[in-house]
Amino acid sequence: MTKVPTSHPRYKSLLLRERLTDGLRAGIAGEAGLLAHGRGEAFDYLLGERTHDFAMESIRMASALLVTANHPVISVNGSTASVAGPEIVELLRALDRLVAEVNIFYYSPERSRRIKQHLKDLGATRLILESNSSDSVQLPDIEHARKHMHPNGLAQADVALVGLEDGDRCERLVASGRRVIAIDLNPLSRTAKTSHVTIVDEVSRALIELTACVRQDLAAAPAALAERIDRYDNADILNRAVAAIRNAF
Amino acid sequence: MTKVPTSHPRYKSLLLRERLTDGLRAGIAGEAGLLAHGRGEAFDYLLGERTHDFAMESIRMASALLVTANHPVISVNGSTASVAGPEIVELLRALDRLVAEVNIFYYSPERSRRIKQHLKDLGATRLILESNSSDSVQLPDIEHARKHMHPNGLAQADVALVGLEDGDRCERLVASGRRVIAIDLNPLSRTAKTSHVTIVDEVSRALIELTACVRQDLAAAPAALAERIDRYDNADILNRAVAAIRNAF
Repeated sequence: MTKVPTSHPRYKSLLLRERLTDGLRAGIAGEAGLLAHGRGEAFDYLLGERTHDFAMESIRMASALLVTANHPVISVNGSTASVAGPEIVELLRALDRLVAEVNIFYYSPERSRRIKQHLKDLGATRLILESNSSDSVQLPDIEHARKHMHPNGLAQADVALVGLEDGDRCERLVASGRRVIAIDLNPLSRTAKTSHVTIVDEVSRALIELTACVRQDLAAAPAALAERIDRYDNADILNRAVAAIRNAF
Repeated sequence: MTKVPTSHPRYKSLLLRERLTDGLRAGIAGEAGLLAHGRGEAFDYLLGERTHDFAMESIRMASALLVTANHPVISVNGSTASVAGPEIVELLRALDRLVAEVNIFYYSPERSRRIKQHLKDLGATRLILESNSSDSVQLPDIEHARKHMHPNGLAQADVALVGLEDGDRCERLVASGRRVIAIDLNPLSRTAKTSHVTIVDEVSRALIELTACVRQDLAAAPAALAERIDRYDNADILNRAVAAIRNAF
């Protein structure tokens, strides 16, 4: 529970830190997640800790892809579950067909189960899958535990939403023919450059906007969504994100 | 002890992480230190993980100040002790008059003592002071434990070397009339902008160069050191560091 006063000028950033350190203590997030979060904080600080127009454009694209997908899946790791747990649950509420799948680098059955339970404690009512099942399908050329895909989850996915991703896994997901949406604060990362849609924004902030967008798009005309998907240019988004960070200096 | 193979392309960066997570487990570093280290990693990544010419210029200035100081003190916190313990000990070996003082944000007597012991385990033979003594002198306008100065350490210091600093403490140290040398990877931070000398470099890398410089300068002509001190322009250093980071994009 939060101990940061809401009046603090950096309230939101400190709240996210607290969610993550709570996650570390609960055995959900790992130490590497704290280091990665710190790296993300640096980029978010350079972005002025706000959702830019280029991020909103990626979010609208992500929404169109998720709403029109046959089998959309959100891949959840320990850091994302800690930092953006309530926002993930809210997105699951907004989009019935979206499947949540726990997929983690430092795998243990307990940690995977705890992440699942954390989402349930936050109000997720849907079945939540775990990648490391005995009948998992494996992405090629990945040594670590993140290669696993649940046969009813990522293995079937046509659209995968991933936050705080490993570059190699992102590449393999893209190579496998799936449409990949990544949320990544570093527009220069391998994940950012490889994904079809890169949302350069802090993950909890981006998910709130994405959920609002999805709620609207569920009532949108299919032709309008198809046109939005056609028009989208991820290279342009990344260029604009890089320009925004340059402007911080 | 390290488990990272020396052949790994990011060996040095991973070694520092390992030192820090070892420090966390040993009760020396804190969780906030991991987050801060991650932020630093982002800036170091943008700097190409190398010591730039502007950092070398600050290091030479720092060396001249330390060598000519009456009472130079290095302030050591849990993160610096974890990440750069061996390099701090080497600097203490090079400069006899340099006093090391443990000064931490999340103070407990045990943690302060453990940091001291860590430096001794790494080979420090000198007396190491702790800021939080019963007879400490306090910097004004700081609420947290870092306000304390040991009466024979920072309280007497004419030159203070601080790594991974809090902006408010740095400001108070400067306001107190001391010459402050900070090691900070973010050239936009309050610490970077406030200090007399800002070494924009990773702390363990900077300390290795600083120690080499100090060994040379102990034999240098006083007039040459005085001239170097006169010529130094920290605003120019910060501008060049900002330009180097801009070039990463």
